[in-house]
Amino acid sequence: RIDADRLWDSLMEMAKIGPGVAGGNNRQTLTDADAEGRALFKSWCDAAGCTMGVDKIGNMFATRPGTDPDALPVYVGSHLDTQPTGGKYDGVLGVLAGLEVIRTLNDLDIKTKHPIVATNWTNEEGTRFAPAMLASGVFAGVHTQDWAEDKTDAEGKRFGDELDRIGWRGDEDVGARREKMHAFFELHIEQGPILEAEGKDIGVVTHGQGLSWTQITIYGKDSHTGSTPMPMRKNAGLAMARILLEVEDIALSHAPHAVGAAGHIDVYPNSRNVIPGKVVFTVDLRSPDLSVIEDMETRLDAAARKICDDMGMEVELEKVGGFDPVTFDEGCVTAVRNAAERLGYSHMDIISGAGHDACWINRVTPTAMIMCPCVDGLSHNEAEDITREWAQAGADVLLHAVLETAEV
Amino acid sequence: RIDADRLWDSLMEMAKIGPGVAGGNNRQTLTDADAEGRALFKSWCDAAGCTMGVDKIGNMFATRPGTDPDALPVYVGSHLDTQPTGGKYDGVLGVLAGLEVIRTLNDLDIKTKHPIVATNWTNEEGTRFAPAMLASGVFAGVHTQDWAEDKTDAEGKRFGDELDRIGWRGDEDVGARREKMHAFFELHIEQGPILEAEGKDIGVVTHGQGLSWTQITIYGKDSHTGSTPMPMRKNAGLAMARILLEVEDIALSHAPHAVGAAGHIDVYPNSRNVIPGKVVFTVDLRSPDLSVIEDMETRLDAAARKICDDMGMEVELEKVGGFDPVTFDEGCVTAVRNAAERLGYSHMDIISGAGHDACWINRVTPTAMIMCPCVDGLSHNEAEDITREWAQAGADVLLHAVLETAEV
Ligand SMILES: NC(=O)NCCC(=O)O
Ligand SMILES: NC(=O)NCCC(=O)O
Repeated sequence: RIDADRLWDSLMEMAKIGPGVAGGNNRQTLTDADAEGRALFKSWCDAAGCTMGVDKIGNMFATRPGTDPDALPVYVGSHLDTQPTGGKYDGVLGVLAGLEVIRTLNDLDIKTKHPIVATNWTNEEGTRFAPAMLASGVFAGVHTQDWAEDKTDAEGKRFGDELDRIGWRGDEDVGARREKMHAFFELHIEQGPILEAEGKDIGVVTHGQGLSWTQITIYGKDSHTGSTPMPMRKNAGLAMARILLEVEDIALSHAPHAVGAAGHIDVYPNSRNVIPGKVVFTVDLRSPDLSVIEDMETRLDAAARKICDDMGMEVELEKVGGFDPVTFDEGCVTAVRNAAERLGYSHMDIISGAGHDACWINRVTPTAMIMCPCVDGLSHNEAEDITREWAQAGADVLLHAVLETAEV
Repeated sequence: RIDADRLWDSLMEMAKIGPGVAGGNNRQTLTDADAEGRALFKSWCDAAGCTMGVDKIGNMFATRPGTDPDALPVYVGSHLDTQPTGGKYDGVLGVLAGLEVIRTLNDLDIKTKHPIVATNWTNEEGTRFAPAMLASGVFAGVHTQDWAEDKTDAEGKRFGDELDRIGWRGDEDVGARREKMHAFFELHIEQGPILEAEGKDIGVVTHGQGLSWTQITIYGKDSHTGSTPMPMRKNAGLAMARILLEVEDIALSHAPHAVGAAGHIDVYPNSRNVIPGKVVFTVDLRSPDLSVIEDMETRLDAAARKICDDMGMEVELEKVGGFDPVTFDEGCVTAVRNAAERLGYSHMDIISGAGHDACWINRVTPTAMIMCPCVDGLSHNEAEDITREWAQAGADVLLHAVLETAEV
């Protein structure tokens, strides 16, 4: 079993970097706080006797050697970046539990045939630079590196420039390890309410929901809220409101197999007495069923065009992120289920509602995920919370799944 | 008649300060650009032989003396501040036409019994610091100075601090002149389409529409867009969308005697994969009929509370700006109408759709407004445009109305 106190202390240490305003974290990708968090993680990996490799997109790989020079490494990890008002566990638990696996093996002086690599993937959240899971996507060959580096944040700063600025561009070619992986395991909090409601310690993640992000730009006409007669208005904010109601209807029509919402909304010029001349917002649609996602995308496109057309406005729809539903590797999933069983933790099979780096890495090596509950299913919120026992159970299962796969 | 070329040149000179991104202006109140615009206006007033007085809220008063020491001054003016994406004429025309009246009288060596004071009122637009017409409101005794100075912009900067920072806090007590005014005239572009559509040079403004600004804050719960089941969501953005549709319905139910829209919308944390946990937006409702405004406010309040209540969310409604419909002074209105008639300009009576400093000043001295057309009725837009002939007609009528009132 892992050392739950040590894991917890490391989680709390990391949470001091990039504190939020309400007890959580704001350690967005490629900020100074991200750099600080990376340095802390590296210092811990160094102390655990690992060698740190960093690739040209900032992904970090801390290797504990194996005994067989021909055996490919087993990867464990997640991401250290957070939402602007994020929690202390989303991503971080998976990275530090990976480190905790290595620390535990060191303590017990257990050698594995396969090397073990604790990993931190760059920009999983996708808040500052869309899409989410950007660097694991480049690693897996889904995106090109140039495409990723040209992504800009709300202030127009480039991903590539910010990576250089914080000093975490490494020298490994991105994806150079792709063909040389034995397996990947990611422990993550559920970010939903199911495990807690069902009273289970462990979610054995068999599938991941697919996602579609559509950025919608509506061109109205900025004009005076007082002196522009109602029939002459092109109120882009009103068109957006109509589309938001459609999004809700479209998602609910597939209930409970789909969700939909817009989290990002920018209105221009955003002045109390100016009718919005432009709005830019992003609709997030998800389902475990690819045909449902496709249906929702088609209906969103049609609804947005009809609404704007009827109101005499131009609209642009751009897909800024997405991935298909994922089926994780049967062997790895079984290793997770066996580990939970062996350790006596209650468990259930579950579909991940969120996207994870594991969804991309699953394309290049056998992959599975372990989930632990979070209080009230709350995530992407500073109040996100887990118990020490849940963290312990997740990390214990990770340890055993890794041990079975890396072979003692 | 005034010198139309000189007036136009001054307008173009002023427009160089705080240029926008699309040919208009971004010279928001109490910015460095505002300070620069004020300095230019003062230099022109000095050159025209005026003495400049500045009050403790930054209102500027350039006085051309009269011949009778007991005669109270006739005020002319408007505002030099602009929207973030504003035009070159909204407000500016009224200030520089006031100066042009003085320059013309100087040229013709005409002395008036009453002094003439060209005025620039601070923060008319209300974009950076709500409400609009803030400093003329303090001058007229509608707001207290402390209340105004404590207003903060989106970055949390205080009005009073910003006034000090740009160095335009004068030493006159605000409103000290209130009892010592003979009349006030404000020339302004219509900001609506009526005069152009009717082919009239001049709008004789008999009334002003009333306004109500309600800032609405909805408290949802920020949570993950992927893993939060639809029934567990508290999507504050969706609640806002429902309220925006109600605003449209409420305004249209009083058509054509009311307008309504939300120009200001802020969503938190504004991240693509976080359900909005909070939204803050401002609803702008207007009508020339006070009972209509009151009805709309009541219905907005009820609709917002019901929508949020049904969705299990808290809502706060705060009135952040407003004024009752205005009836301008019959004598001053007649002076404007006579002037247009005498000069042979086509004219019609009109109700102002926008709020203006004149709406507050009307409470403390006999007041009227003159409107000139603007292209396509477009304002609060960088493409706002007028012709040199329209500017000339407006300033000519201003000159004659002032002359009749200030007595030669
Ligand atoms: N786990 C997580 O929140 N990932 C971000 C990508 C997503 O929005 O699902
Ligand atoms: N004229 C003008 O745009 N004033 C600002 C106040 C308002 O919104 O009506």
